[in-house]
Parts: sequence; C-alpha cells; structure tokens
Amino acid sequence: MSTATTSKEKVAQVILPSELLAHWQGHRTLTRKVIEAFPDKDFFEFSIGGMRPFSKMVDELLSIAGPGIQEIVTGKAVAFTEEVAHGNSKTKVLELWDKTTEDINANWSKIGVEKFHDTIKLFGEYEGTILSSIQYFIDNEIHHRGQGYVYLRSLGIEPPMFYDRTEA
Amino acid sequence: MSTATTSKEKVAQVILPSELLAHWQGHRTLTRKVIEAFPDKDFFEFSIGGMRPFSKMVDELLSIAGPGIQEIVTGKAVAFTEEVAHGNSKTKVLELWDKTTEDINANWSKIGVEKFHDTIKLFGEYEGTILSSIQYFIDNEIHHRGQGYVYLRSLGIEPPMFYDRTEA
Repeated sequence: MSTATTSKEKVAQVILPSELLAHWQGHRTLTRKVIEAFPDKDFFEFSIGGMRPFSKMVDELLSIAGPGIQEIVTGKAVAFTEEVAHGNSKTKVLELWDKTTEDINANWSKIGVEKFHDTIKLFGEYEGTILSSIQYFIDNEIHHRGQGYVYLRSLGIEPPMFYDRTEA
Repeated sequence: MSTATTSKEKVAQVILPSELLAHWQGHRTLTRKVIEAFPDKDFFEFSIGGMRPFSKMVDELLSIAGPGIQEIVTGKAVAFTEEVAHGNSKTKVLELWDKTTEDINANWSKIGVEKFHDTIKLFGEYEGTILSSIQYFIDNEIHHRGQGYVYLRSLGIEPPMFYDRTEA
C-alpha cells in the first residue's frame, strides 16, 4: 500500500486535500474578520430586506462546518440544528469560530484522498459526495459573507479586503 | 503517454478538471438567473451603501472569466479592463454571459491536470497558480452574487435558490 500511496502522491492533482483545507481555512479567517468588523448590536440585529442579521448567518455556518466534517469522518449522522449557544455575545461567537477551526483541522487528515467521491447523506438529509458537501460548506460561507459586506457598507463600515485571507 | 494518462485518471483525485468546470458553470448558471431576476433599470442603477450596481459587478465577472481562461490557455497576458460593451442592455449582458460560457468550455480541455499548479501572473498583475486563479474567479463570483441577493431582497424580489445550479 505504501508504494501505491507514494505513487498517488506523485500523480498530478488539480488540488490536494491539504490545499483544499488551506483554501477553506483562508476563507474562514476572512469571515472571522467580517464578524469582528460588526458592532456588537448590529451583528445581532441589523438586517436589510427582511433578511437575517449576520449573526444568524454565522450560526448557520457554525452549525454546518464542525458538525459536518465530524459526520464526514465518523459516518454518524446527526440532526441539523442552527441553535448555537452564544447568548448573543460576539466574543463567544468568535470563541466558537476558533474552536471550529481546530475541529476542522483535527478531522481533516482523516479524510483520505480516495474518500472525496464517496456518497453521503449529510445531517440525514442532504445527499451528495464528500467533495460536493465540502464545496457547499465553502460556497455557502462566501455567499453569506458577501451579504455581510453589504450590511457593513450600509452601516458605513469598510469591510476587510476580499482577497486578504491571512490572520491578523 | 496514453498509458500514463490512463493511469493518472484512475488515481484517486479530490476533484477532476471536468468536475471543477461543472462546478464553476453551475455557479455561472445561478448567477445568470440572478441577472435575469433584476428589473432592467435596477440592474444598472440600484445600489446599497455606496456600492456598485449589480451590473458593474457582472461587468467585472465577464471581464475576468473569459479573458482569464484564455490567458491561462494561451499564456498571452492581456491588460485587464472592466469595460464591457453592452450599452446598458440586459439582453446584451446575457448574450455576453452565454458567449463566455462557450469560451470557458472551449478552452477548459486545453488545461491539462498537470498544469493547475503552474504559476502565472494574470492580466500581467495577479500572481498565483492556475488553480488559485480559477478559485478566485469562482469565489469572487459567489461573493458578488451574494451581494446581488441583498439587492434583490431589498427590492422585494425573491432571489433564485442558492443550491439550484440547473438551467431553467
């Protein structure tokens, strides 16, 4: 098996598992900056056009990312819930964000490159492959963060640069 | 070479070039629906918080996608311009969108799987790999389209479902 593994690693790949992780965590670093940019009150209350406040979108991201990767790794389906116990404290949200960062990193290495096309039914509900699920996690985060940018602009606050994925 | 190619294809990959293309075109199909959802006047004029109208964001997407892939395939740098000749006609924008869809498809097969980690300086300015450039194209589109969703909601218009990437 080790020879096969070695030969696998040497074969050209569009993206390596480690690169996909870095890509996602880079986006998560930027999303963290967007959370930080919101005044506390506006994070939990400000909205446009009847949409959710940014905090509720972040609850969704937190509910998907950590539990999603855990389910991918363990194969144990858990029911999806967007209830996040932060007690309307942005500090607590950021703590949960950082905890999720660690959880994703800890679980990621358990997803072998040969697993990404395995089919799963995430949260007992969403059918796809491990790859399509992770793509959804990332894309959904970019989508809602883009909405957070409009909220910030509407509040007269300059958002972080879209391409800045480095930690502050 | 054909044996090597065959063995390559059989090796486990996170994502195949053809899958990355389908992922991007799926997103582009959704963005097309968002363009269609805007009333003509609002597409070119409506904005929030001093941001660009959605048409200007779409100009940016059109300026990046087709020319970007062409530069990736030909290696010939072209200066970046966001001037798109649509004469403030949404019909013309949609025509250019569909032309870009064809251009991307036509060029994509010329990017071999072994090319994605090659470094490039896109539009003579943006350094990265072919992979990171294409990831930027996709992510930037999701980001701005998410902003378009807020514009639509603010206009009282229901946007298309985020997960619906199929053609109408």
